[in-house]
Amino acid sequence: MKEEVFYGKGMERVKEEDGDLYQAIVALNDAVWNGKALDYRTQKLIAIGIAASNGDSRATEKQISSAKNELGITREEVEDVLKVVLLTSGMQPFNKALQIANKVFE
Amino acid sequence: MKEEVFYGKGMERVKEEDGDLYQAIVALNDAVWNGKALDYRTQKLIAIGIAASNGDSRATEKQISSAKNELGITREEVEDVLKVVLLTSGMQPFNKALQIANKVFE
Amino acid sequence: MKEEVFYGKGMERVKEEDGDLYQAIVALNDAVWNGKALDYRTQKLIAIGIAASNGDSRATEKQISSAKNELGITREEVEDVLKVVLLTSGMQPFNKALQIANKVFE
Amino acid sequence: MKEEVFYGKGMERVKEEDGDLYQAIVALNDAVWNGKALDYRTQKLIAIGIAASNGDSRATEKQISSAKNELGITREEVEDVLKVVLLTSGMQPFNKALQIANKVFE
Amino acid sequence: MKEEVFYGKGMERVKEEDGDLYQAIVALNDAVWNGKALDYRTQKLIAIGIAASNGDSRATEKQISSAKNELGITREEVEDVLKVVLLTSGMQPFNKALQIANKVFE
Amino acid sequence: MKEEVFYGKGMERVKEEDGDLYQAIVALNDAVWNGKALDYRTQKLIAIGIAASNGDSRATEKQISSAKNELGITREEVEDVLKVVLLTSGMQPFNKALQIANKVFE
Repeated sequence: MKEEVFYGKGMERVKEEDGDLYQAIVALNDAVWNGKALDYRTQKLIAIGIAASNGDSRATEKQISSAKNELGITREEVEDVLKVVLLTSGMQPFNKALQIANKVFE
Repeated sequence: MKEEVFYGKGMERVKEEDGDLYQAIVALNDAVWNGKALDYRTQKLIAIGIAASNGDSRATEKQISSAKNELGITREEVEDVLKVVLLTSGMQPFNKALQIANKVFE
Repeated sequence: MKEEVFYGKGMERVKEEDGDLYQAIVALNDAVWNGKALDYRTQKLIAIGIAASNGDSRATEKQISSAKNELGITREEVEDVLKVVLLTSGMQPFNKALQIANKVFE
Repeated sequence: MKEEVFYGKGMERVKEEDGDLYQAIVALNDAVWNGKALDYRTQKLIAIGIAASNGDSRATEKQISSAKNELGITREEVEDVLKVVLLTSGMQPFNKALQIANKVFE
Repeated sequence: MKEEVFYGKGMERVKEEDGDLYQAIVALNDAVWNGKALDYRTQKLIAIGIAASNGDSRATEKQISSAKNELGITREEVEDVLKVVLLTSGMQPFNKALQIANKVFE
Repeated sequence: MKEEVFYGKGMERVKEEDGDLYQAIVALNDAVWNGKALDYRTQKLIAIGIAASNGDSRATEKQISSAKNELGITREEVEDVLKVVLLTSGMQPFNKALQIANKVFE
């Protein structure tokens, strides 16, 4: 759970070859998602907003996919996140993220 | 309510001199914060995460201040937002936003 | 006219499912491109510069394509925009945008 | 003319201590602003849009000030630039740049 | 040593109130600066380049100051970093960082 | 040597059609990589860090490839660069760059 960040060959190599770094990333990941005041679902919605606002297609797709698969986050919830992206960060990142969301929820 | 974005002389001038633009911004603002699946409080936390991730001191301070004053959002909630900023966007924006949060909640 | 921003399935869904948001985006779009001191052509060149400077490939291609098709903006004009991107924002976004421009005008 | 970029002690030192770099920057500056299809005024408006979109207060102020003093660019023209920033890049950089513009034209 | 990142009241509070997060940040910091192929000095120069390229004044000043005080990194070395920033990321972040470097080494 | 930046049809056209701009870019490139205090290898590592931190896939791949082919920079050295990206700029650009590095060194 909350492990989606470790997928991929990239992180596999880090685990094998740089154990200290891998352990630090795991510990950071655990400490971050373990909110004291906000639940994991809310933090996940924030992570989608950040990835989309930065125009990072890869991170946006990963965050929306894991939000949907892991937490059952709906298209409507993602759209409410993307509205905040539109207001704060404009049409360019909004349009890009909207396309990604439509693909994930298609 | 939800009007904090209109404060400041900048927007005052827009209102007086470019009524169409002002009306469009008001309408966008209303449509954005009027989430269908997420409440205003959750959207506000997302806006804090986006401002902090972008390293925008001015927007981060405005968002945290209005979150606190308008919605009673707590220091602990903001810290849980900033943890997501740390993981996704690194120590540079995290440190900057942490200082701002400490000033607002001091 | 000036409608290129609405293309794509993403915005189609917004129109159907969130009429208030769609109307606000249309109103904002109309108010923005309706410059009081600058013509639409000049504003379009500014939009190309912003998209290119941000390294946003998708937005850069859309802006250059619509500039060419809708307004007859030439390769030479786009190159003069990209020179400003080079000076202000460096070789990384300049090279990326130059490739996109060459593809559009090929 | 077009020399505003060289002001400041920073560039003075470059001139004295790294002549090759200084000459290269001068040559680049000359080649950039010497548009083949666009005039200097239009390129300057593009530079304002890029600085504002990036949320760079220092560059935004320098560009707007030199646009006003060197070329007589008006508040209305700058506002039409900032509308494009609003649409493409959102309220956060728009609000920041609007305040700067108001200060310069006050 | 390598501790500059923990200064400031912000991180003090994290230490007191969120021990897990603090320990994870310390572990990450240790794992990052403990390069297998590059020494700390080279990694520090990279951190200066990243902070300057991002236009983050606060992080740029902190990185240059600690580079100078902790490692004896010289003005000439910082200038060679900033040249890379100029080429890759343009005059806007270069000028901003050059001013900061001049202040630190004044 | 150090010429990788000029590859590609984009720059070919600049050379043919805008000789002044091309010469200025060549002169800037020469002045930048000709460090007074740092060697080319160290500057190259800084360029990789900047490209990766900005989340620019195209520039990151070009910089890592030319670092490997031109200078024999190793996977371990690149990983030590990317650790700095992780700490300063977060998991999103780190993950993206790690995948690119794995492809280049595969």
